[in-house]
Amino acid sequence: MDVAIFTVRQQQLSVLLVQRPNTPDEPFPGLWALPGGFVDIDRDRDLEACALRKLRDKTAVTSPYLEQLGSWGSKDRDPRGWSTTHAYFALIPDAGTPEAGANAADAAWNPITGNGVTVKLAFDHREILETAIDRLRSKVEYTSLPVYLLPTEFTMTELQRMFEIVLGREVEKSAFRTRVFSADFIEPVPRMREGQQRPAQLYRLQRSSGVVFFPRTFSPRGHR
Amino acid sequence: MDVAIFTVRQQQLSVLLVQRPNTPDEPFPGLWALPGGFVDIDRDRDLEACALRKLRDKTAVTSPYLEQLGSWGSKDRDPRGWSTTHAYFALIPDAGTPEAGANAADAAWNPITGNGVTVKLAFDHREILETAIDRLRSKVEYTSLPVYLLPTEFTMTELQRMFEIVLGREVEKSAFRTRVFSADFIEPVPRMREGQQRPAQLYRLQRSSGVVFFPRTFSPRGHR
Repeated sequence: MDVAIFTVRQQQLSVLLVQRPNTPDEPFPGLWALPGGFVDIDRDRDLEACALRKLRDKTAVTSPYLEQLGSWGSKDRDPRGWSTTHAYFALIPDAGTPEAGANAADAAWNPITGNGVTVKLAFDHREILETAIDRLRSKVEYTSLPVYLLPTEFTMTELQRMFEIVLGREVEKSAFRTRVFSADFIEPVPRMREGQQRPAQLYRLQRSSGVVFFPRTFSPRGHR
Repeated sequence: MDVAIFTVRQQQLSVLLVQRPNTPDEPFPGLWALPGGFVDIDRDRDLEACALRKLRDKTAVTSPYLEQLGSWGSKDRDPRGWSTTHAYFALIPDAGTPEAGANAADAAWNPITGNGVTVKLAFDHREILETAIDRLRSKVEYTSLPVYLLPTEFTMTELQRMFEIVLGREVEKSAFRTRVFSADFIEPVPRMREGQQRPAQLYRLQRSSGVVFFPRTFSPRGHR
């Protein structure tokens, strides 16, 4: 099991990495890797429960957006021999920092640049991460996924900003709002965001809403 | 590893199933299941090679369309204990009948009705098969996948019929042809199909062509 856990922090799409033990009897000592490890057959009911446990260990987040990413398996990916992994990807709000986790001394957020990170990754994790970034970016073109990168309550400007950060480009404000409201997956709460700017309506995900698929992708400039 | 192998035979989308040994020390004795089994770490370079070997054992087809479908893993899916599987789905031409395989005495094609087959399946294979059928049908709405259900050379009418069989509905002929020609993934060969009807141009998949994504899905009546 390996989990690519994404959040947006400091206005950058970031992935959680863990440092491997620096002992010569472990493969890739000291390198960074996606959080993961073996299924615990006494504790994990199924693969999803295993992925949630790996995530909880590092972030204290218990209800992320979680999706199966794929399988990697070959005789070469681990120097110890033939191995396979079931990879997942997760989206969490920035509040789920590694520091909040129970076992997170070795974990750190790394900003995504291009299709990966600047540090060298263990195993085939560069390829798994690249696949996760591709999947995330392509889904953000036509789904409501970025809402899972936000805290429970957010303004429309904050939601738009999440789409823009993951897409890596600006979208046009009025077309964005039309699209979001017609997709009907968020609802206003009876509170405003107060601050230095004028108060802004707060929204939350509708309780019954799963991931919403938009009828079309964003055009390059966000026009419909 | 489990592989959902599809073909179209006798005008019906069909899946290859194998019968489990009828011995009391094996789980689900005598029931039907998707072809699969364990990775052979001495023979299989990676998961895809393993899937191809399973397919070759049952059908003698060596170059199918092959795609990762997903992972299934839990403490309950196999009575022998915690187990996981990497599932693939494959498309092959009708020529790849089980009888042609080296080890196919136990294999049979089952027509798909609705979202599955009429026989009871072992393990969680009903769920895996349902996921494969969903994936196939949804991809056929916007990709060139049905071309892999045909022999090397085919007429436009035969290609259209493959789309219609998988989709379970008719598509409009001229809109279908416009779509296929503008997607540019097949090419004519210097031969005609001769027969009782008037000769028809034969086509083949372009050598360099992978799966092509159409710019939009088929509308319910096939109009663009």
